[in-house]
Amino acid sequence: MTIFSKIIAGEIPSYKIVENDKFYAFLDIFPLAEGHVLVIPKIETDKFFDVPDTFLAEILVFSKPIAKAIEQSFPCNRVGVAVVGLEVPHAHLHLVPINHVNDPQFHKRKDQGFPGTIESCAGKNHL
Amino acid sequence: MTIFSKIIAGEIPSYKIVENDKFYAFLDIFPLAEGHVLVIPKIETDKFFDVPDTFLAEILVFSKPIAKAIEQSFPCNRVGVAVVGLEVPHAHLHLVPINHVNDPQFHKRKDQGFPGTIESCAGKNHL
Repeated sequence: MTIFSKIIAGEIPSYKIVENDKFYAFLDIFPLAEGHVLVIPKIETDKFFDVPDTFLAEILVFSKPIAKAIEQSFPCNRVGVAVVGLEVPHAHLHLVPINHVNDPQFHKRKDQGFPGTIESCAGKNHL
Repeated sequence: MTIFSKIIAGEIPSYKIVENDKFYAFLDIFPLAEGHVLVIPKIETDKFFDVPDTFLAEILVFSKPIAKAIEQSFPCNRVGVAVVGLEVPHAHLHLVPINHVNDPQFHKRKDQGFPGTIESCAGKNHL
């Protein structure tokens, strides 16, 4: 069982944004910026492009209102998307507020989460 | 008319990978790695999440066989996805071979294309 499946199951706490039958969205505990959200399919697939087409066809439509909410809630030019997936063998999509052509910059990722950041995200109206 | 619309129209040359009624995929002329492909919708929309749902629902399914071909053709752990969109006001999705948790690293992007890279990409069996 991946760490993300444990989060979906509630065995590991997370700050949930929204979920449906296929996906679960929650605040990244190692945010690149305030409002950084992870969207994960509710199936354990390592590589993103091995996720079934029914999920691939819905993940961006599911993510759209979340991205709009992030954009309204945090100072940014827009919300970017990133799929890397080398850390956790459970496909996931990052929604990250971006302001610079080089964003998102994972090499600047901190080693620890920012509880204060999550609190401040959680307090925003739109998210 | 954006530079990407000119590429779709053939007014600016590109190394096309594949296209359908909604999307056009071609080799990025400033690749982060060999096999770096851009997928663009055939409509001019600045922000990715303003692209109509009909396109959002198909872009990853359209991208999947391209990502699989890249993964088979170039040495990489897998193919990552990135949407940034601050350089060209025409939504686009990067498919980039990745090997490191910090990839894709746009800050390492070169200022010039690598004609040799495009040639070598074009010569691969799967792409």
